[in-house]
Amino acid sequence: MEYKVFCPPDFNEDKYKKMPNVTLKEVTTDGVSPEGFYLTTHMPTYYKYNDNWIIPKSNSLNCVAVLENDTIVIKEIRNLVKGDKVVMGKSRDGQNGVLMYKEGFSKELYEDNGFSVETSFSEEYELLTDLMKREKENGGHIVWVLGPSVVFDHDTRVALVELCENGYVQALLGGNAIATHDLEGGYLGTALGQNIYTQENVPMGHYNHLDLLNAVRRAGSIKKFNDDGHVANGFIKSLTEHNIPIVLAGSIRDDGPLPEVYRNTEKALSAMQEQLDKATLVICLATMLHSVASANLASGYTIRENGDITPVYMYTIDVTENVTRKIAAARELMAVRSIITNVQDFVVNVQKSLIKKEDK
Amino acid sequence: MEYKVFCPPDFNEDKYKKMPNVTLKEVTTDGVSPEGFYLTTHMPTYYKYNDNWIIPKSNSLNCVAVLENDTIVIKEIRNLVKGDKVVMGKSRDGQNGVLMYKEGFSKELYEDNGFSVETSFSEEYELLTDLMKREKENGGHIVWVLGPSVVFDHDTRVALVELCENGYVQALLGGNAIATHDLEGGYLGTALGQNIYTQENVPMGHYNHLDLLNAVRRAGSIKKFNDDGHVANGFIKSLTEHNIPIVLAGSIRDDGPLPEVYRNTEKALSAMQEQLDKATLVICLATMLHSVASANLASGYTIRENGDITPVYMYTIDVTENVTRKIAAARELMAVRSIITNVQDFVVNVQKSLIKKEDK
Amino acid sequence: MEYKVFCPPDFNEDKYKKMPNVTLKEVTTDGVSPEGFYLTTHMPTYYKYNDNWIIPKSNSLNCVAVLENDTIVIKEIRNLVKGDKVVMGKSRDGQNGVLMYKEGFSKELYEDNGFSVETSFSEEYELLTDLMKREKENGGHIVWVLGPSVVFDHDTRVALVELCENGYVQALLGGNAIATHDLEGGYLGTALGQNIYTQENVPMGHYNHLDLLNAVRRAGSIKKFNDDGHVANGFIKSLTEHNIPIVLAGSIRDDGPLPEVYRNTEKALSAMQEQLDKATLVICLATMLHSVASANLASGYTIRENGDITPVYMYTIDVTENVTRKIAAARELMAVRSIITNVQDFVVNVQKSLIKKEDK
Amino acid sequence: MEYKVFCPPDFNEDKYKKMPNVTLKEVTTDGVSPEGFYLTTHMPTYYKYNDNWIIPKSNSLNCVAVLENDTIVIKEIRNLVKGDKVVMGKSRDGQNGVLMYKEGFSKELYEDNGFSVETSFSEEYELLTDLMKREKENGGHIVWVLGPSVVFDHDTRVALVELCENGYVQALLGGNAIATHDLEGGYLGTALGQNIYTQENVPMGHYNHLDLLNAVRRAGSIKKFNDDGHVANGFIKSLTEHNIPIVLAGSIRDDGPLPEVYRNTEKALSAMQEQLDKATLVICLATMLHSVASANLASGYTIRENGDITPVYMYTIDVTENVTRKIAAARELMAVRSIITNVQDFVVNVQKSLIKKEDK
Repeated sequence: MEYKVFCPPDFNEDKYKKMPNVTLKEVTTDGVSPEGFYLTTHMPTYYKYNDNWIIPKSNSLNCVAVLENDTIVIKEIRNLVKGDKVVMGKSRDGQNGVLMYKEGFSKELYEDNGFSVETSFSEEYELLTDLMKREKENGGHIVWVLGPSVVFDHDTRVALVELCENGYVQALLGGNAIATHDLEGGYLGTALGQNIYTQENVPMGHYNHLDLLNAVRRAGSIKKFNDDGHVANGFIKSLTEHNIPIVLAGSIRDDGPLPEVYRNTEKALSAMQEQLDKATLVICLATMLHSVASANLASGYTIRENGDITPVYMYTIDVTENVTRKIAAARELMAVRSIITNVQDFVVNVQKSLIKKEDK
Repeated sequence: MEYKVFCPPDFNEDKYKKMPNVTLKEVTTDGVSPEGFYLTTHMPTYYKYNDNWIIPKSNSLNCVAVLENDTIVIKEIRNLVKGDKVVMGKSRDGQNGVLMYKEGFSKELYEDNGFSVETSFSEEYELLTDLMKREKENGGHIVWVLGPSVVFDHDTRVALVELCENGYVQALLGGNAIATHDLEGGYLGTALGQNIYTQENVPMGHYNHLDLLNAVRRAGSIKKFNDDGHVANGFIKSLTEHNIPIVLAGSIRDDGPLPEVYRNTEKALSAMQEQLDKATLVICLATMLHSVASANLASGYTIRENGDITPVYMYTIDVTENVTRKIAAARELMAVRSIITNVQDFVVNVQKSLIKKEDK
Repeated sequence: MEYKVFCPPDFNEDKYKKMPNVTLKEVTTDGVSPEGFYLTTHMPTYYKYNDNWIIPKSNSLNCVAVLENDTIVIKEIRNLVKGDKVVMGKSRDGQNGVLMYKEGFSKELYEDNGFSVETSFSEEYELLTDLMKREKENGGHIVWVLGPSVVFDHDTRVALVELCENGYVQALLGGNAIATHDLEGGYLGTALGQNIYTQENVPMGHYNHLDLLNAVRRAGSIKKFNDDGHVANGFIKSLTEHNIPIVLAGSIRDDGPLPEVYRNTEKALSAMQEQLDKATLVICLATMLHSVASANLASGYTIRENGDITPVYMYTIDVTENVTRKIAAARELMAVRSIITNVQDFVVNVQKSLIKKEDK
Repeated sequence: MEYKVFCPPDFNEDKYKKMPNVTLKEVTTDGVSPEGFYLTTHMPTYYKYNDNWIIPKSNSLNCVAVLENDTIVIKEIRNLVKGDKVVMGKSRDGQNGVLMYKEGFSKELYEDNGFSVETSFSEEYELLTDLMKREKENGGHIVWVLGPSVVFDHDTRVALVELCENGYVQALLGGNAIATHDLEGGYLGTALGQNIYTQENVPMGHYNHLDLLNAVRRAGSIKKFNDDGHVANGFIKSLTEHNIPIVLAGSIRDDGPLPEVYRNTEKALSAMQEQLDKATLVICLATMLHSVASANLASGYTIRENGDITPVYMYTIDVTENVTRKIAAARELMAVRSIITNVQDFVVNVQKSLIKKEDK
């Protein structure tokens, strides 16, 4: 499968030459932007500085563009510090030195594909597994964004482990619950007190959830808890043992939480941003909260080692259209694909498809 | 996999012997029951007549019980004719000669299993494919109740054909749309004007739907249209060529409709009833209308050739809980199982699982 | 509130004069169209015949245009009879004598309004009640398309009666269930056996549904049953006593059904079409089946007595976006408005708003 | 309307006298409980200490019970500090000195009411407005838990202000978005760039959201921003000017955020807990995240000044059953009521109903 490479504007054209350099204004209060700032989107955007057109390494939604060491970096307003030089002006057609240029991608990448509950997904699965193989072969960075229901199912848990062991997972973004439930499975064989295979309630099973949390908190970290031999199996175990980054963002729904969970939402966002800046493919399953956050944070494109600019595909898989629609809107449709299904079926399908393909 | 056989009451017990025979009253107007009739449910129910306890071959919801040739048959009120002898009385604990006895089934068959969007379905798939294999081996009657979205997907259409060819389909219940869309696929390679594999709109594709309907209407029947060589592939083609019954019930949403579609809802219901009376397993996918109708019509049990009474499992698969909950309620939870997922994933999973199992 | 009047093309323009007359072809088999027919939409469409541009009194989706007595009428393919002269050709830009001209309406009438669960509906309510007042004042024809859940609620039932008594209902389209449940309320004070105000189950209440059906069937008609004094209150009672048309289309989910229910879907559609051809405003609540059918059948415009062409607004109210989206798509967005809410709140709001306005 | 007062056990009965005192164990690590702790629920629960049965002033889900100053307080595990004395044992039937006693409430308070999309809500509205009037008259503490969609609608915003001005709001729990959108409305007349009444996009309106956030961040606080005269109207303005507590919990979906937003989830939870411990009625609208958190935190009962123990009703209003079901489950059905509708209709209905009632 070939990359759909972005085709930059021909900056030798006269009209680009006539466009002015960006205007900059200094931040005077930490975490506050000068008024009149330029607000970023996910789309490939060039900034003219010193008569050169610069594209940042990655971008993000609802941020500001800052000049740093003669290049442009994208910053959240809250992370601005006194003295930062912010790009000004609301237009993005070049007249202020800012040129948003999604037209460099082929049009079908950002057209509405109208996915709905009744869409047929045969082709989507094929596209996704092709993308995953490509990323694996090319040293890509596949980021999985997972809701907790994913690890309630025996087959899915097995499939996630296998995908991890086979090099299809470079980071996990999620919340306290997914790690907690998966660890409960590896520690006590249950998820929220239900036997993870038969779904039957075990006696006093409602204690298992808090018992696990308390036990990991006593150990001090997931890693220590796992090293001590308390975890028989599971996705978190595999990730931990392969040193694959796990970013757990805290929320007000959390019990516990686990020691690694970021209680501070801004720190959580920074840790997520770090993974998503590297992402070449993002797969979001069954979580509105983390999916929308990731859709906002992740760049719409990535710059490959050879200089090629390629789209960052975002797959969103959920059993309701409501979630997938929100993600598509947040990405302004850019390279976003949806599969409306049970996430368990999805994960198992992907695993079977990739393993089978490889065996050949 | 073994049958969960129903254990009848011991009618030699004194309490059963003391219970009276049923009271009967004659119908005086066609389609109208005498007041005070007994209203049927899906559950195994015995009627005492001439001091014998009779269980009908099948039952159905919201019907009346009629004495016919010294046995009890279940009839819709609208099908009553003058002179029919209707069982009277509202109680079903035996005091009027009517004994509803679901306790003959093991309790977990009619307990609330609380399926929701977040349920894990690994075990459900295994149970279903075991049931399908069992029914195939034992000459069972597997009835599929399908909504139209099922045939929009290339892989699903292939899977349905394979399930049909391998003996896992004994009847199809559905509406005008499923047959129309599937035939459009076989005739013009599209479904509602979209290429069935790539989902792309073909030029003037919105005509294809009506063009197909008009063409089959000209041929006079689906069978004739297929025999004339107009259908390249698809589920309807396979069913037709294997003489597997297709019952298409008309609705006010239909275009066309196809010649075989029942315009009369009462005739449609009778044709559905005929298939469902024989059903040993019912699988409902992605249709509220036809699933609820089937849930009302189908018996809760079947009597096997050796006299064993076994439950009629009803699987309901949909991407929303709303539908699966309605079916579960309509069946009073008896042997009803739900999988909340995309029906395309479901069908393909089942096909892969059954074919794989057989290959071994 | 003023009408948004359609502005026809200026047929004196040269380009229109150069366009040819329509081509016609005769039907040779009843219920089958000649191949190559023109397929209709809801949009205002002119047909050139004898060098005049004719617009039919109303139109409908997925039909054919037939020349009858020197004018154009819209017919379902199934209603074609031998000798009917059908308009041919797929294009609708005038080159075959067929000119679809939605541009005569102001653009915001057919733009995507993006209604979703999170939309704010204050303005929608105001627009609707203004439309209802206008239609009442101008002898319009307001068609209500209702699902059964509407009459389960005490306040809603009261509100519907009041809207009926105050001249805001000119026809009811629905199924067996809405009439059955409403009549059960007026006959026994319950809906499906639940007390209609307290929602508590009454003893043996599950009999009430079938008892009511059986009783009306004995009476022979809803009207006779009501005349005999069996119905204390309710929407059906009010409609019946005001001679407002009730069209009940049968489906395979029906119990009974009531004597007036059309068992034949084609007859049901014709009866619906009759009401919808007159409709100047259509309000669809809580029914996918009847709403989609009505969305297909109803014209996109109506011709007022003074010759003005005005849009037929279709309001669709449901608690899920799924239904409202389908309707919007079926209408190609033309004058379709959605309110995503509980239909009970909707009906009571509309009643309070209209009655209050009138009291002033 | 009368309180449904809890009826405590008669502790003079012999069986209670024979039950042992609780066993206590000391915390050795901050934020970690001794193993074998008793896990709390929302239900009224007595702890026997020094031969007295103590009921805490409020309780909460998934916490531990701690002896403090000869009484029992409920603590999150994460808030435990070294030396805390934790109640031990898993049983809650008294055999370890812990007696969970929901039977003191009348049974219909914790029975499944089976609310669904098709439920009739006339009676629910009446119960709620009666509860609100009662709480207002008796100095109750009504806590509103709101999602952001609530303030997108003109009428709803007006209604919330009026409810606030009339004494029906004692605290607001929500996230960054509700305050941000409401303030954008008061500052620029838009919500996410759409005119708040006409829903039309204003030019460059997508800047408004970040411009508002940036402006409040510059001011340093919502209060200062409002005092400076930047806010024309809205719910946050009213709450601020009446000194009604606003607890804004941060999440990873936040832009900005506003200065008052808790970035630390544990601090957010403590601030929410403070309001919910006082709550006598909780109303949750259109937010899964904050509703579930509140359902976990809020006590199932409150102790009135006269010593009466009364249930804390939790109303959950949402347009999907999914949310309301989760809340009902989290509360173990105790005094939880659901209305499945558009929250805009809900708020306006409640306002009209309460104001009308008062005017009389």
